[in-house]
Amino acid sequence: MSEFDLIRRYFTWPTRQTRLAVGDDAALLDAQGTLAISTDALLEGRHFFTDVDPQALGHKALAVNLSDLAAMGAQPLAFTLALGLPAQRAGDDLWMQAFSLGMRALADHFQCDLIGGDTTMSPMVMISITVIGQLEPIHALLRSNARVGDDIYVSGCLGDAAYALHALQTGQPVPDTLRQRLERPTPRVHLGRALGRMAHAAIDISDGLAGDLPHLLQASGVGAALHLEAVPCSPDLLAASAHVSREQQWRWALAGGDDYELCFTAAPEQRAPLQQWARDHQLALTRVGQIESAPGLRYFYQGQPLSFDLHGFDHFPDTITT
Amino acid sequence: MSEFDLIRRYFTWPTRQTRLAVGDDAALLDAQGTLAISTDALLEGRHFFTDVDPQALGHKALAVNLSDLAAMGAQPLAFTLALGLPAQRAGDDLWMQAFSLGMRALADHFQCDLIGGDTTMSPMVMISITVIGQLEPIHALLRSNARVGDDIYVSGCLGDAAYALHALQTGQPVPDTLRQRLERPTPRVHLGRALGRMAHAAIDISDGLAGDLPHLLQASGVGAALHLEAVPCSPDLLAASAHVSREQQWRWALAGGDDYELCFTAAPEQRAPLQQWARDHQLALTRVGQIESAPGLRYFYQGQPLSFDLHGFDHFPDTITT
Repeated sequence: MSEFDLIRRYFTWPTRQTRLAVGDDAALLDAQGTLAISTDALLEGRHFFTDVDPQALGHKALAVNLSDLAAMGAQPLAFTLALGLPAQRAGDDLWMQAFSLGMRALADHFQCDLIGGDTTMSPMVMISITVIGQLEPIHALLRSNARVGDDIYVSGCLGDAAYALHALQTGQPVPDTLRQRLERPTPRVHLGRALGRMAHAAIDISDGLAGDLPHLLQASGVGAALHLEAVPCSPDLLAASAHVSREQQWRWALAGGDDYELCFTAAPEQRAPLQQWARDHQLALTRVGQIESAPGLRYFYQGQPLSFDLHGFDHFPDTITT
Repeated sequence: MSEFDLIRRYFTWPTRQTRLAVGDDAALLDAQGTLAISTDALLEGRHFFTDVDPQALGHKALAVNLSDLAAMGAQPLAFTLALGLPAQRAGDDLWMQAFSLGMRALADHFQCDLIGGDTTMSPMVMISITVIGQLEPIHALLRSNARVGDDIYVSGCLGDAAYALHALQTGQPVPDTLRQRLERPTPRVHLGRALGRMAHAAIDISDGLAGDLPHLLQASGVGAALHLEAVPCSPDLLAASAHVSREQQWRWALAGGDDYELCFTAAPEQRAPLQQWARDHQLALTRVGQIESAPGLRYFYQGQPLSFDLHGFDHFPDTITT
């Protein structure tokens, strides 16, 4: 199958808001106002297993990008897909159909048009997606916009994906709900849109709250107190990990990565509207700390300061600097 | 070095027309009118050699993407970069500096802001770029817009890059001018902008004229006659390949790939303005054929039809279909 057949068969979908999609030198998109643009790449053997469910992979590759738009408060418009494939994958119709289906279902759900891309032969599956969204600049959830006195919130629960990954890697049984959280994360697009009017700053949690929150603090020139007992863990995670230490549970919840929840800051006056939104949309928004003027991230457990060496996942931990 | 250090050290450049660039969940770009968006990926071992000059690689990775914008008639605005790197590359400051410099020089030349991206550890260097440009829809150079009776043109000369690649692969000496054409192609951005008002349809020649022109013909529902004696080859190519057959020269010129010249169609009334533009900008625009109503691409040599089995480079030639 040629590159062109591949695109025609698996990646030529109807579009909604695009002037010209797949098939020319570039796609044409009519835009008004300010665009939010983000790129994320996923690599076989590094970000996912070779035997991953291809439908889940198609979903997740787009989901992690939509999560970045959500963290900016943007409405998804369109995306491009650069796809590297081993020859046997490109020729595996079932795999390709499932991958395409998983991606398309999520794209349809958020009305995000696939407008172009590139396919190439590659020794391993590699996926690079660029998403384009739209927002009003005044509602952009900049990392740099946190203010002293803001509450710090996280959406949903943390640690499910990290536990599922750990269990898969160590051959332990994985409850389906936790596996879904690892393989089919839900980008918090609707929440991000709503936060544009309620929150000050936001970041999506891809490398663990303890790894990502410091980026927000640094960008805003502030610090924070984080209350560990408030960090939300799902009943499924607590049940599945009942045999391990509390500290290990915190590691999954704070430094595990792959949560794709939003961490955001908002003024105390927003507590009631935020809880109303949470009830209306059945998505927990949990207050886990406060923004403070002193730089750094300080951990507390039941009011007592806690010394804790947590750090998020970093892609180049072993590189030698010169 | 962490992912963040890497981005800070090599890929945080001043921007001109971007509201918010590298450093948040998404970049913010103020856009007016219609955007042209294109994605291209380059992979070590497939699109470039491991020992490639990193400065040339940085240039070329962006150039091939800008070429797509040129073929649409768009003005470059911004791009994102997804970069996969082996650990020893990420830690090789000279290599990284050179790669960054090559990309940045071209970005500066065309005032195209680097606004975001992603870096990840990878077994080989992989580069995926998404470029965003701007145009007025009425001047978009759609592939589907060729009209019967149009002249067919190519810019510059064809085959230089293909010859250089052949010579490098077979250990023959390569004139520096030809090697530059392979390693540092010039995206025809200014030409593309001008053609918005003079031409009907355009495509950039990445897989060889014989491979790319049929896409334009098919999209427009037309055919073409191509006059081989008119196909422009550089004096350097003709001199370097004086010992080979004319047919082999044509193969490089028509099916070699990596030219990144524009092939476009224009009404005969545009001959004088186009030649004026060519003189003003010292870039040859050569008439190589005409658009005809009968589908297909027909080759002629000095008026005689020629049977010639040429085809462009295709990324999945060996995939088994099911």
